[in-house]
Amino acid sequence: MATIVILGAGMMGTAFAWPLADRGHSVRLVGTHLDADIVQSIEHDRLHPKLKLTVPSAVVPYAVERLEEALAGADAVALGVSSAGIRWAAEQLRGRLTPTLPLAMVSKGLEWDGDALHVLPDAFARACGETSLSPVGVAGPCIAGELARRVPTSVVFTSRALAQAKAWAELARGPYYHVHCEEDVVGVEVCAALKNAYAMGMGFGAGLHAKNGGVTGSIALHNYEAAVFAQSIWEMRQLITELGGDPEQASWLPGVGDLNVTCNGGRTGRFGHLLGSGLTPPEAIAQMQGATLECLEILNTLRLALGHPAALRGVRDALPLAQHLAEVALDGAPIAMPFERFFARRATARR
Amino acid sequence: MATIVILGAGMMGTAFAWPLADRGHSVRLVGTHLDADIVQSIEHDRLHPKLKLTVPSAVVPYAVERLEEALAGADAVALGVSSAGIRWAAEQLRGRLTPTLPLAMVSKGLEWDGDALHVLPDAFARACGETSLSPVGVAGPCIAGELARRVPTSVVFTSRALAQAKAWAELARGPYYHVHCEEDVVGVEVCAALKNAYAMGMGFGAGLHAKNGGVTGSIALHNYEAAVFAQSIWEMRQLITELGGDPEQASWLPGVGDLNVTCNGGRTGRFGHLLGSGLTPPEAIAQMQGATLECLEILNTLRLALGHPAALRGVRDALPLAQHLAEVALDGAPIAMPFERFFARRATARR
Repeated sequence: MATIVILGAGMMGTAFAWPLADRGHSVRLVGTHLDADIVQSIEHDRLHPKLKLTVPSAVVPYAVERLEEALAGADAVALGVSSAGIRWAAEQLRGRLTPTLPLAMVSKGLEWDGDALHVLPDAFARACGETSLSPVGVAGPCIAGELARRVPTSVVFTSRALAQAKAWAELARGPYYHVHCEEDVVGVEVCAALKNAYAMGMGFGAGLHAKNGGVTGSIALHNYEAAVFAQSIWEMRQLITELGGDPEQASWLPGVGDLNVTCNGGRTGRFGHLLGSGLTPPEAIAQMQGATLECLEILNTLRLALGHPAALRGVRDALPLAQHLAEVALDGAPIAMPFERFFARRATARR
Repeated sequence: MATIVILGAGMMGTAFAWPLADRGHSVRLVGTHLDADIVQSIEHDRLHPKLKLTVPSAVVPYAVERLEEALAGADAVALGVSSAGIRWAAEQLRGRLTPTLPLAMVSKGLEWDGDALHVLPDAFARACGETSLSPVGVAGPCIAGELARRVPTSVVFTSRALAQAKAWAELARGPYYHVHCEEDVVGVEVCAALKNAYAMGMGFGAGLHAKNGGVTGSIALHNYEAAVFAQSIWEMRQLITELGGDPEQASWLPGVGDLNVTCNGGRTGRFGHLLGSGLTPPEAIAQMQGATLECLEILNTLRLALGHPAALRGVRDALPLAQHLAEVALDGAPIAMPFERFFARRATARR
């Protein structure tokens, strides 16, 4: 059995330890400087305070100061930090990774470097100064609290080096953790990043309904939400194609699967609900009590890319939903869903 | 402005009158022999008893005996009957339709004729004895009760004669009713038919969660549901391809959009929830109090086709979810979701 290091002891980083521990591996869970309370809690009584669960006995907590000790003899490494923590993690791990040490990342996002958009596995390899690395992106529908309760979960591991994805799949897959491997890092990771933005938009429907005095039920704004859902997948397909990936990734686990789960269980949907119910972005952010809002990061990144004269030229007019979501969440514009501009390129292609 | 006949005064047939009335058309709403109560109620106080709404003043109710009178001078006809009523409707309308009279159908389903599967617009044209007809299928996410409350709704009109779809779109589209036209009847209608079966499977997760003592919330079986959602779209793509349509139809309004709305607002999801919570099919059917369960019809039809030695040979092993749903809902088998067989063809294609 293997010795595996997870860097980042938040909800998802820690939940990832469950299938690994259940496969008999030893897991060294290294908290970041933001996770000191979590590490202390696990050391004290084995309880993860955010997951509200006792971690498996095979999981040994480490404070960030002991990272080097944790990495000694590791057979594989997983990054469980948020997208904002990727650069920090790269600094910590620079020079300690080799192309043969399987490296997985549960972080999701896109990076804009002033000229082009990059998916996080590529951005991380560059930040490490090791372009020969082929980190494995972990994508697909997975609520951390459910994985840690052993709910059946189907995910996608993606790497430019398929053998790396397969190596990680062999370590992690089990009776409740179903892993599919893909070489198309761009297609898979674009879905993983964008779903947070679109799930925010999916929350608008319920928020608007509540604002109008409606109650939860079968008569609400589900028709509205479903059109937003379909347009979300449509826009993912456009952006994937523009960035050189396979748009079909939007049509299975990484796209429709992950968007579905994010609408049902994520923070982002709740944030969208608050915006839909009439709160301004600062008011809605305040209500989220410090929860990481990756939807704002990805919308910001996308806007930077769309604002550059040479980037994303092929999809400038193909993302009306993403652009409206940015106007609402970043600028505080009122919600006015541009349904009449949805699927426009589809109609053009058929003319 | 036009005079439009809708045959079938159930929820969806009647809701379809809203965008038409709001466009200024005169609508003759003809109840079937099953709709006598509804016609009487509208005649009495303008209330539709199932929608629980006052119908627009432009809608004139007709009992089925006055069908011929209603058809006199009509500019367009819409069928609002359920899939089971298609043959009956064909008998009523035989000889009264011409290829230039735009005909729309909100009915959804597939027909098995002993040799092949047919989408409903084709089946209806054949049942009328008029293969020159090109009925317009109305698909995409649309809960009737929401359309009749003018909730923004985006749908697809599909016909082998695109001009017919466009003619209907011109009659119906409006500020809250966004219509997209497609020539690929097979792709669109396969999605419309199958989504009922798959939405049933989406209900299993919440039912199983409730059975295990769980409460509705962000920690449930959402990972399970999301994998089922993704596999549903994946299987739609396989079946569309096998039947000669464009699998991309599954990736926008007809597929992901309609499945999303059916999970959130439909009877079918409730039926799946009951099965997931441990009820036998007869017990679950009894709890549904006579609601039309199109999921059972489509699963039955699909099983007949899969049981034929020459039909659907290309997808025999590609529909593990649909086959399991049939075992559960038709045979009373226990739920044991075959996650390890999901997306199998994807892996094969990449090997």
